[in-house]
Amino acid sequence: MQTLNKHVGLFIDYYELTMAQGYLLGGKKDCRVTFDYFYRKNPYGGGYTLFVGLEDILELVLNFRFEKEDLNYLKKAGFDKRFLEYLTDFRFRGDIWSCKEGEVVFPNEPIVRVEGNIIEAQLIETILLNFLNFETLIATKAVRIRQMVGDQIVTDFGLRRAQGLGGIHASRAAIIGGFDSTSNVYSAFSFGLHSSGTQAHSWVQSYENELEAFRSFARIYPDNCVLLVDTYDTLNVGIPNAIRVGKEMEAEGYRLKGIRLDSGDLAYLSKKARQMLDDTGLYYVKIFASNQLDEYLIKSLKTQGACIDVYGVGTKLITGKDDAALDGVYKLSESDGKPQMKITDSHEKMTLPGRKKLFRILNGDNKFYADAIALVEEKDIGLIQHPYISRKHMDVSHMKKEELLYKVLNSGKRITVSRKPGEIAQYAQERLNQLPEEHKRFENPHAYKVGISEKLLILRDKIVNSTNQKYG
Amino acid sequence: MQTLNKHVGLFIDYYELTMAQGYLLGGKKDCRVTFDYFYRKNPYGGGYTLFVGLEDILELVLNFRFEKEDLNYLKKAGFDKRFLEYLTDFRFRGDIWSCKEGEVVFPNEPIVRVEGNIIEAQLIETILLNFLNFETLIATKAVRIRQMVGDQIVTDFGLRRAQGLGGIHASRAAIIGGFDSTSNVYSAFSFGLHSSGTQAHSWVQSYENELEAFRSFARIYPDNCVLLVDTYDTLNVGIPNAIRVGKEMEAEGYRLKGIRLDSGDLAYLSKKARQMLDDTGLYYVKIFASNQLDEYLIKSLKTQGACIDVYGVGTKLITGKDDAALDGVYKLSESDGKPQMKITDSHEKMTLPGRKKLFRILNGDNKFYADAIALVEEKDIGLIQHPYISRKHMDVSHMKKEELLYKVLNSGKRITVSRKPGEIAQYAQERLNQLPEEHKRFENPHAYKVGISEKLLILRDKIVNSTNQKYG
Repeated sequence: MQTLNKHVGLFIDYYELTMAQGYLLGGKKDCRVTFDYFYRKNPYGGGYTLFVGLEDILELVLNFRFEKEDLNYLKKAGFDKRFLEYLTDFRFRGDIWSCKEGEVVFPNEPIVRVEGNIIEAQLIETILLNFLNFETLIATKAVRIRQMVGDQIVTDFGLRRAQGLGGIHASRAAIIGGFDSTSNVYSAFSFGLHSSGTQAHSWVQSYENELEAFRSFARIYPDNCVLLVDTYDTLNVGIPNAIRVGKEMEAEGYRLKGIRLDSGDLAYLSKKARQMLDDTGLYYVKIFASNQLDEYLIKSLKTQGACIDVYGVGTKLITGKDDAALDGVYKLSESDGKPQMKITDSHEKMTLPGRKKLFRILNGDNKFYADAIALVEEKDIGLIQHPYISRKHMDVSHMKKEELLYKVLNSGKRITVSRKPGEIAQYAQERLNQLPEEHKRFENPHAYKVGISEKLLILRDKIVNSTNQKYG
Repeated sequence: MQTLNKHVGLFIDYYELTMAQGYLLGGKKDCRVTFDYFYRKNPYGGGYTLFVGLEDILELVLNFRFEKEDLNYLKKAGFDKRFLEYLTDFRFRGDIWSCKEGEVVFPNEPIVRVEGNIIEAQLIETILLNFLNFETLIATKAVRIRQMVGDQIVTDFGLRRAQGLGGIHASRAAIIGGFDSTSNVYSAFSFGLHSSGTQAHSWVQSYENELEAFRSFARIYPDNCVLLVDTYDTLNVGIPNAIRVGKEMEAEGYRLKGIRLDSGDLAYLSKKARQMLDDTGLYYVKIFASNQLDEYLIKSLKTQGACIDVYGVGTKLITGKDDAALDGVYKLSESDGKPQMKITDSHEKMTLPGRKKLFRILNGDNKFYADAIALVEEKDIGLIQHPYISRKHMDVSHMKKEELLYKVLNSGKRITVSRKPGEIAQYAQERLNQLPEEHKRFENPHAYKVGISEKLLILRDKIVNSTNQKYG
């Protein structure tokens, strides 16, 4: 990664440090714990979520350390000498189990499981939450947009409206979610993504007139010429000028690649533009469109028969509009061998205790049927239980199953091969293809079943019933 | 700045590079241009915006360059040898004029004016837009939250739900907008902010019982002990345990600093908690509250008489919910001495031509009365015109005025002193105090008047009327 290459240990919420120092000074530094990363609600009212960000958090966890400058800073902030000594050669030496990056996941599933001593497991919380929450949010938005775009091309134009440096990982997530390219050169360079772009209004305005601006661009970029036609008057001036230049290019043996519409009624303008281009023999010229697009606008454009070949999507992709954040959390599930859970009045906010694994149950045609959360020692699962309604259960004993959690860090060492965004995007596409259509609907998608094993149910209920002992 | 300390030149939309190469190869590299940064709509339906991000963009513009690795990357991407040579020792050597960071600004005002050759002015567009749009968005949210919090304390808890690395500059913007501190250690270290934090549920869960968890924390942090009381049962267990520990601390000569509520009905629970604390003589113990807070929820809590001393605000601050992005743009206003503007059918999207300055007109009591956009050569302004309704104008000739744009970069050299977030926050507070209350209302704020000078009006209309010549 090109950013956050220094001071990684400081990318943290202050209370993690307060607690870590407390564990050290309170004599609990060797307490072995397990934390789960999970979220409670699919974003955008959808029926699924695409898990993205694993490669980035692994890189950050492996680089997680406190430099001299960092320790001096923490000293000034009042931290204890013994704690600063402890941090001096601190490295994360625990284990991490995770779903594959690009996996389709669902609410309340333990997507990542962290095991280690209580200090190391606590200190990486902020990094895990920040990157997994954000990249997963953006990738899931990208999947939805790709779903609407279908076989056409869609490119990320969002960097200028991204949330600061957040744009860096957002463009990566967009590609994994199915985008073809990005305007973001920094991310393209950092992660090996495809980047592209042509011209803005300022190019057109900086010339004496639009025709001269178009001609100049065509001369310099005869093989990659996309002309922005809405600077003055799209239908009466911009498209006719582009056609004129297109014909001039033909005479020179080149082909105008496209025109871009960036304002106005894109359905109406694109149909008119297609007609005007076709009428002059420029049937091969592609129509690019941008301007506040998202999956809903693209759906509407398609319904209206808009003639758009390439979609540019900015703000609403790169910020995950209308969901600003995924509600992912990182919760303690075991401590010193004892299963732990958060008990609250609302059962939706109760967590699941113990070290857990995740099964995916497949239909005969290899489509996803249901998931089941079980305890790590369970080799197989026969009956899956509804988490809250005891009479609801399913026999899945004879169905095909996959385990979804893989060990990726062993005692702080990476044991899986790093994958590039392109490979992860391909895996994501394969997995999305296995998800039945009814879960992919935008409106009121059918809820995917996530059950728990009988053993986990019994453990949870035992802890809830004996919880008074915890109050002190 | 601690991030983006490398590869700054690649933090760019691809088309800026395409255009820059085009300007070079097309023989336009010495064309002198002016660009304006402005936005069209105040965020959150509010009546004003706090301009933030200037220090960061100046630092990035001064560090803007292409390293060898970057040039190799661009070579592989297909850029021309002559352009890569040009980029080798590229530096921004133009001028930048800007409002002070922390200024209160309004739609369509030229907040930043960039002058330089067409390549340098084009290449810094993405950096300007990204950082100014984002930091301004978050700072304005912070102002609104501070407005509701009043004299109490409010702290930023957002890093774990921030949009990736965007959290870094968001926490800076939050402090400038009026927040007291942040959980974000990285930003505190990078920008000199105040950072703080105590404990999470995992602390409580990792002990045999809640009482022991509280006692242990109090032993280690007797001077900074805030106890999270909602892990098991806030009223029946958490608060009684905190009170017990508070009394034990008293016996040792210490004072429990606070309790924190992080779930449930905060109005009800905080009032009950205050009563329980007061009844046991712990009147000095502060009540901290967090959980999906924003300015509206805080307003509601205040209306209900909630007993909260310290507010922790996370997701909705750090992502600028419900506005994901400020709609700031960067538009060409002059090229080779000729005023330029974007002409469209909707006059709201028309830009203002020429090199412009900004006047603020003050009432007798030094409150903001109106702003006026004028041409740089205008030393004073007598009559200000409504931008679109010609019969609407105001005589401001005898009123006190300030110019809002200052030269901050001269031929690529910084000529103003760098200011720390704390100083900028103080300036912002002073300026916000000068803004009349009716513009600060959350619902239907009174629109602040922004007029244009007669000279600018005449110039604009002249260009609109003669625009056919531009079509080619």
